Amino acid sequence: MVHGVKRLAILGSTGSIGRQTLEVVRAFPQRFQVVALTGGRNLTLLKAQVREFKPNLVSTESGNKGERMHGASHLSMEEIAAHPDVELVVIATAGKAGLGPTLAAIRAGKTVALANKEVLVMAGEVVSAEAKRLGVEILPIDSEHSAIWQCLRGEDSQDIARLILTASGGPFRSKTIRQLADVTPEEALRHPTWQMGTKVTIDSATLMNKGMEIIEAHWLFGVPFDRIEVVIHHQSIIHSLVEFIDGSTKAQLSFPDMRLPIQYALTYPERWEGVFRSRMEYAEIGSLNFEAVDLGRFPCLRIAREVAVKGGTYPAVLCAADEVAVELFLMKKIGFPGIADLVARTIERHKGVSQPSLEDIIAADAWARDAIRAGF
Amino acid sequence: MVHGVKRLAILGSTGSIGRQTLEVVRAFPQRFQVVALTGGRNLTLLKAQVREFKPNLVSTESGNKGERMHGASHLSMEEIAAHPDVELVVIATAGKAGLGPTLAAIRAGKTVALANKEVLVMAGEVVSAEAKRLGVEILPIDSEHSAIWQCLRGEDSQDIARLILTASGGPFRSKTIRQLADVTPEEALRHPTWQMGTKVTIDSATLMNKGMEIIEAHWLFGVPFDRIEVVIHHQSIIHSLVEFIDGSTKAQLSFPDMRLPIQYALTYPERWEGVFRSRMEYAEIGSLNFEAVDLGRFPCLRIAREVAVKGGTYPAVLCAADEVAVELFLMKKIGFPGIADLVARTIERHKGVSQPSLEDIIAADAWARDAIRAGF
Repeated sequence: MVHGVKRLAILGSTGSIGRQTLEVVRAFPQRFQVVALTGGRNLTLLKAQVREFKPNLVSTESGNKGERMHGASHLSMEEIAAHPDVELVVIATAGKAGLGPTLAAIRAGKTVALANKEVLVMAGEVVSAEAKRLGVEILPIDSEHSAIWQCLRGEDSQDIARLILTASGGPFRSKTIRQLADVTPEEALRHPTWQMGTKVTIDSATLMNKGMEIIEAHWLFGVPFDRIEVVIHHQSIIHSLVEFIDGSTKAQLSFPDMRLPIQYALTYPERWEGVFRSRMEYAEIGSLNFEAVDLGRFPCLRIAREVAVKGGTYPAVLCAADEVAVELFLMKKIGFPGIADLVARTIERHKGVSQPSLEDIIAADAWARDAIRAGF
Repeated sequence: MVHGVKRLAILGSTGSIGRQTLEVVRAFPQRFQVVALTGGRNLTLLKAQVREFKPNLVSTESGNKGERMHGASHLSMEEIAAHPDVELVVIATAGKAGLGPTLAAIRAGKTVALANKEVLVMAGEVVSAEAKRLGVEILPIDSEHSAIWQCLRGEDSQDIARLILTASGGPFRSKTIRQLADVTPEEALRHPTWQMGTKVTIDSATLMNKGMEIIEAHWLFGVPFDRIEVVIHHQSIIHSLVEFIDGSTKAQLSFPDMRLPIQYALTYPERWEGVFRSRMEYAEIGSLNFEAVDLGRFPCLRIAREVAVKGGTYPAVLCAADEVAVELFLMKKIGFPGIADLVARTIERHKGVSQPSLEDIIAADAWARDAIRAGF
């Protein structure tokens, strides 16, 4: 262990955020040490990453088989997140997979860089209470939350009047309700500004993504839901804005490149000379544009907001139902508007538990998946 | 003296910034105490302000006449700036008038809230060295510098890659060179977005204002001139931007209202619930626009930048020549393009002194005024 080197565990290293995290690590080879990598189904890529970054610890979806991959010990994601060799845990998993490891990392006192938004959507109350109790920092990787977090540097969160999350609006921003009925998964996966994983890209097309980000922002920054707004900014240059009580607003801007907020989370509280930086010429860009969100065409945002206010186990059901609905859409079993319908119907059926324990949350997640599978 | 009340001296209280500073004070009567007011030619207004705010100390342009105004002691601006009863000195004077009092305040260890941009343009090296030596803070009131200062909260100024000052472009943004030859003082005084004093409004029309702000930003934030840029943003909503070395940029936004940056400087490091705050609806605004500056039509910005790099006594000559040129334009003795011509010719004739003392700066100022008066 060299002084000044950050020792990273990257959970979900074969996914979009995981791969981009490794690009950042590659750009600063003297300053990061990859202690652990965990991957899902893409074993070939995980093996290549292990060869390149030589972590001591690995985990794969197939579980702790006792086998060693290129000399690395095989542990569970929770064991890796809590391992003494690890300093900063990057949660780059998707869906509910990140929840257990995030809690394990927090309980072991590790700093968590969080890209897996479902963790705070499902279990925001439990996770943030635990982080607060143990004095552990949760560093957001999502571009919107990174933007807010950067705007809040040196500020008092008591002074926040309003958070304004920007949304690209996805590929279907200008489609009519009628047109939305017929869009295909292939079209939904063609995001105009961001290169992201499949699930997030579909969530971005339905605006469910933005709804989840409202819930995430609430738990990260302690701002009530009625002071978290969304505006469409299709260029994805302004990543979000914070309005303060004195009437001043701060915004954070960059070209849409996830490696920038990843780098910020990894180097925080420092900023390192950017390898991924490109010069923004405002006069050439000409204008930064905004539009109101149309909740009629994008009901997922409305549903997520209602669920946010309901709280309890409802957000976990939202996440589970959305995960299944997106899969069904990708398999062409339901149409694009079917995603919102299925999520809304599942929420309606759910009998929520308020101030849920982690077990309640996991049970609600399982209930939602079973309920959809059983066709109610 | 009540605990928690800030004791203010407002120098130049009858000018545009002075009056708006008193509006901020009026909005928070329990939290500010006006200890001193100083005015120029508008004695009637000064007397009314003294009646309302009951300062113990006053100063008028006519000098220290030993007379008392509504029970207040009459002192010089320098004496007021250094007075033991004063905690924060607001320099809301215009032109070179603020230089002496600013230095007096710094030398007495007072925090300075600076609106008089010529102070740092003329004597940036002397003033900032003195402030640094004595550990005194200079808090900017200019909206652009307030924006940068707010974006730098919690940041390391070593991490600045680029400052981008926004400029409204003034009332003549879209005029051709030919049209600019014929514009009148009345037209030049009709600023599209900001309500400001006469001198600043004309400087805003020539973009000399923005040139001076480059110099001011250099001294306030320690950023080299080649990393301070200007972009036209005619809406005056984004007040400036800071790009960091990692590729992230922060911007500060608000409706154009000088009471906001004044309030920020007066309440710093706190933010107080804003009386002057109005809700910004980004979707209604629709777009925030940018254009490149045309140095052909607005040569004052080019001249100021050249002078900035020359340094020494040249910036003082720039200020003096501009002050006289603006007066001549307002008196219709010269045309609008004559302002830049007169300033450029004066700079050309000047034999600069590098690393000037305060005396050298004052001598350069006097030389420029004499030289113009003598018609070279």
